[in-house]
Amino acid sequence: MKKEHLYTPGPVTVPPEVLLKFAQPMYHHRTPRFREMFSEVNAKLKTVFRTQSDIITFTSSGTGAMEASVVNFLSPGDKVVTINGGKFGERWTLLAKAFGVEFNEILIEWGTAPNPAELEKILADDPSIKAVYTELTETSTGTVFDIKAIGEIVAKTNAILVVDAVSGIGADDIHVDEWNVDVCVAGSQKAFMIPPGLAFMSVSEKAWKLADESKLPKFYFDAKKAKKAADQNNTPYTPAHTLLEGLNVSLSMIVDEGIDNVIARHAKLADAIREGAIALGLSLYSKSPSNALTSIVFEGIDAEELRKHLKADGISVAGGQNEAKGKIIRIAMMGYATEADVMTALSSLERALNKMGVEIEPGRGISAAQASLMK
Amino acid sequence: MKKEHLYTPGPVTVPPEVLLKFAQPMYHHRTPRFREMFSEVNAKLKTVFRTQSDIITFTSSGTGAMEASVVNFLSPGDKVVTINGGKFGERWTLLAKAFGVEFNEILIEWGTAPNPAELEKILADDPSIKAVYTELTETSTGTVFDIKAIGEIVAKTNAILVVDAVSGIGADDIHVDEWNVDVCVAGSQKAFMIPPGLAFMSVSEKAWKLADESKLPKFYFDAKKAKKAADQNNTPYTPAHTLLEGLNVSLSMIVDEGIDNVIARHAKLADAIREGAIALGLSLYSKSPSNALTSIVFEGIDAEELRKHLKADGISVAGGQNEAKGKIIRIAMMGYATEADVMTALSSLERALNKMGVEIEPGRGISAAQASLMK
Repeated sequence: MKKEHLYTPGPVTVPPEVLLKFAQPMYHHRTPRFREMFSEVNAKLKTVFRTQSDIITFTSSGTGAMEASVVNFLSPGDKVVTINGGKFGERWTLLAKAFGVEFNEILIEWGTAPNPAELEKILADDPSIKAVYTELTETSTGTVFDIKAIGEIVAKTNAILVVDAVSGIGADDIHVDEWNVDVCVAGSQKAFMIPPGLAFMSVSEKAWKLADESKLPKFYFDAKKAKKAADQNNTPYTPAHTLLEGLNVSLSMIVDEGIDNVIARHAKLADAIREGAIALGLSLYSKSPSNALTSIVFEGIDAEELRKHLKADGISVAGGQNEAKGKIIRIAMMGYATEADVMTALSSLERALNKMGVEIEPGRGISAAQASLMK
Repeated sequence: MKKEHLYTPGPVTVPPEVLLKFAQPMYHHRTPRFREMFSEVNAKLKTVFRTQSDIITFTSSGTGAMEASVVNFLSPGDKVVTINGGKFGERWTLLAKAFGVEFNEILIEWGTAPNPAELEKILADDPSIKAVYTELTETSTGTVFDIKAIGEIVAKTNAILVVDAVSGIGADDIHVDEWNVDVCVAGSQKAFMIPPGLAFMSVSEKAWKLADESKLPKFYFDAKKAKKAADQNNTPYTPAHTLLEGLNVSLSMIVDEGIDNVIARHAKLADAIREGAIALGLSLYSKSPSNALTSIVFEGIDAEELRKHLKADGISVAGGQNEAKGKIIRIAMMGYATEADVMTALSSLERALNKMGVEIEPGRGISAAQASLMK
């Protein structure tokens, strides 16, 4: 017998009360029932984003909303800054390339966060820059960026700040309005605790003004068309409304717990995972570790082999990508995660290390994590 | 007590065995489990499309795949023909406009099908035309187009034939390979019997050649990137894999019944609905009525008022759009539909007409439908 535990950085565990929502009979989406539900979803999304701005919902993966945050605000030849510290930051650069946008790419070492001063200099040197594209949490490294500091810098310029918070929001803190984030992108299969298929994009007044000038071609991801429909609690094209029904339930769980408490819970769990790993003699891959996921480095051990032992024990974690492949595992605690889940993951890690012949004092990692949780 | 019956032209009723699939625990999509399932889905999709060509799956509504069938095969300034006989044909024209493509729009009367000879002349007059965009089934009118005849014409030219079969496929017959359809677009919430959120696009060799020359910007809907991933039973971005799990079940239902039998069933049910409506003294809106949905015209009666009576009885049908609003109702029988559903819809229609003061001989419509079913 095996119990499956999902610690991958999206999709994450979906609470059973949400899963059962997906087994409800189908209904039509051009109805008051849909509009009422969508209105509730939009209000609760604003609570999680900590914004008063419009939030647009797309039926797509997070990458769809990333594309939307390029095509809706830019014109061919516009200049932007992209911050690339991993696979998802790189995606901003690839998007800029695909849509004929000139980009100044700030390339940073994997596992590090950008230096806001470098961005400040670039923006000061070129006032024609239209937008800055960055991550809240770089999923490939488990690194959280200082969006508050970046926001203060970008707010003083004509540029808009676009943040990929797909993996971060709801786990790593972000205050969209207070931190001057103009466009914040999120996805359903992370701390929102539902399956993949929906993506979200908040749009500030500053960003809407840029949207009025934007000449990049767009149709499916047209934000202005989506906003016009959203103002009537509707969507321009058929939405994945059964996923929205589940989201309405999971958002209520977040709102009922309180977004501050949700973030504090994630911080506490991530702290415990980190302290447990360190007590086991392991080190953290990121110099600015996120709450959403923890990347742990293994020296002298094949991390992919270790993953197999964890998997055999029912524990799904992610491996490393690109240069980090075989060197790290990534343990995500997003959304439906509790103190017990810390114990489950770390205790399995101890047993897996033991199976691989690493000398482990039984309980050392989980005891350190437990001490962290009791702080 | 009320039982809900969904006769809207998408979303349609999802079979309970499929619904329960959506309540299964979440799992990660970068796994052998996903790849095995996706491989099964792709094989079965080919059976329904009646094609040996690649089929690309997007996490989006059908409109997303329509956009994909523009941006992947064209370059700015390319010339195309769009056939507009309703809301969805019009979408082809709007897409061409949005992406800077020159279009020759064949505008036909709502409820009619295009005359292939007119298209033949346009293509003969301008050999530089790159593509023809049309519907299989125009959902706003319930009209099926003669794709076989159109395919014969387009096949003789350099142009590719792109067919929006979102509402048609699996109900109205289409033979993608045999009928020379280069790109066929479909959506999950129609005869595929699952919720909205997935869209499909078949791509012929002729279309792939055009894709190699295409210069329109694309990222999320990049078909070549998707094909490269699909060849490994994967997707470039996180797919709505829980919807794919349901699709794998519903596709098995279709394949087990046999696609010929599925189409024959839809033809039989649509015939019965039509004969029942005619027996009630009503007329059909379309001069080329589809199997997927039947549009019925009401004279001297407000069709929207009638819809309310049906709704009160648990029967959800669609009303008319644009010029047809208030004049017609659209009854869809797509996917999970049986002879009993014909009786349910028509008998409720009889009672609704009676409530609106129309003199109705009780059972006249359902008896005619029954006679049709017994043929």
